[in-house]
Amino acid sequence: MSYYGHTTPSAPPAPDPHPQPGSQPGSQPGVAYPYQPPPPTQSQQPNYSYNNYGHNQNSTQNPNPGSGFGGGQYGYPPVPSFPPGTHPEVIRSFQMVDVDKSGFIDAKELQQALSSGYQKFSIRTIRLLMFQFRNPNDPNRTGPKEFADLWSCLGQWRAIFERFDRDRSGKIDAAELKEALYSLGYAVPPSVLQVLISKYDDQSGRRVELSFDSFVECGMIVKGLTEKFKEKDTRYTGSATLSYETFMTMVIPFLAAE
Amino acid sequence: MSYYGHTTPSAPPAPDPHPQPGSQPGSQPGVAYPYQPPPPTQSQQPNYSYNNYGHNQNSTQNPNPGSGFGGGQYGYPPVPSFPPGTHPEVIRSFQMVDVDKSGFIDAKELQQALSSGYQKFSIRTIRLLMFQFRNPNDPNRTGPKEFADLWSCLGQWRAIFERFDRDRSGKIDAAELKEALYSLGYAVPPSVLQVLISKYDDQSGRRVELSFDSFVECGMIVKGLTEKFKEKDTRYTGSATLSYETFMTMVIPFLAAE
Repeated sequence: MSYYGHTTPSAPPAPDPHPQPGSQPGSQPGVAYPYQPPPPTQSQQPNYSYNNYGHNQNSTQNPNPGSGFGGGQYGYPPVPSFPPGTHPEVIRSFQMVDVDKSGFIDAKELQQALSSGYQKFSIRTIRLLMFQFRNPNDPNRTGPKEFADLWSCLGQWRAIFERFDRDRSGKIDAAELKEALYSLGYAVPPSVLQVLISKYDDQSGRRVELSFDSFVECGMIVKGLTEKFKEKDTRYTGSATLSYETFMTMVIPFLAAE
Repeated sequence: MSYYGHTTPSAPPAPDPHPQPGSQPGSQPGVAYPYQPPPPTQSQQPNYSYNNYGHNQNSTQNPNPGSGFGGGQYGYPPVPSFPPGTHPEVIRSFQMVDVDKSGFIDAKELQQALSSGYQKFSIRTIRLLMFQFRNPNDPNRTGPKEFADLWSCLGQWRAIFERFDRDRSGKIDAAELKEALYSLGYAVPPSVLQVLISKYDDQSGRRVELSFDSFVECGMIVKGLTEKFKEKDTRYTGSATLSYETFMTMVIPFLAAE
């Protein structure tokens, strides 16, 4: 059970594995079907594995060249811009909500940029996404570079979600969540998974099922905490010694991001 | 900045240090002022200290005698009841929302039982309170015993909040939060405190200030995480070695309680 107004189904859909040449459905305003984000670029291989809990040791992070900032030649602060090669649909979605052309969007605008018509992420998932893909200079707002990375990641996660949503119900169950997280490189212990999905249990006795929104919410928590822990477990032993202050500093941002 | 509809000011007010004999304002229905909870019983000394980070080593936890359950003599399941000596106002507030007389109330009902008129806790704070004072048999609902403990704790926290809200604005700032948490037995490192209150920063450049609702929200996070950590730091060294699974199991309930 969710307390913060999750709606289903959620955006964006998985990238079309067989795109039609010249087809850009999202560029047709007013059409009542979900727009298609571009296929992920080469930058977003799943590199979220955690030593013995994960299986994917690939770690090519952020191969996008360039600083992501343009201009600034005349002493003005540089206006953030998209990395070269960013799909026009991603740029269009960002610019649609960045009305003041500041180069940054806040949580509500990010929610709007990722949503179309009936598709929406809860603001809680949006905050967790912003926290995971935060702009080092302004963690409360998302710039073009972070938006492109976030979009690309969501496209991947959508593809994995749909692979495990075998009956196309828009929902996956606990066992499928486990498999889906595993295929993203996270082998989450069953006890942890059980606690994680307990909030989606409506006490009706029915099997717990997650929408894409809830899947991303769970995924961002697992990804974020696992990466924080991994930073402290430099030898990949599967355990780490933490001071009280370190422990609190690792965890509280996730609670403050809510 | 809060994203989940916090309203201020919040209930319940601090216990009246000089109660008028026979005066029970809350028992007058329809009166438009906050009702007074009873003064805390002996059971709720602040016992939340954490070794070198706290200063209060008092640890008389749960001295309330009795199981909190009555009946059951005739083979019926026992209906949970209040511990002996519970103030009638606490019982009245609980019973007002426990319409089916099941002896349990859910999150929305707890919110209602703690609120009166213009006073309200956010559902997020309610969930954190329920998580902290959870019923071992049914963590999604609050029974009489937990309700009495929770009420008593809130009365104490309210008194401390009001002590640090020197100008009676209904708000305390970051420095006052630090002092208030310290007087509850938690010496939270400044870096942690900074992250904790960052979510209440509205980016306007104004000093961050917390309502009682937000204070309780912060307090429950600090109390909960500190106690979890303390369980793993059995020798009170200020650090603990945690496996990945232990770490995740410690932290995720706080995120799932949201």
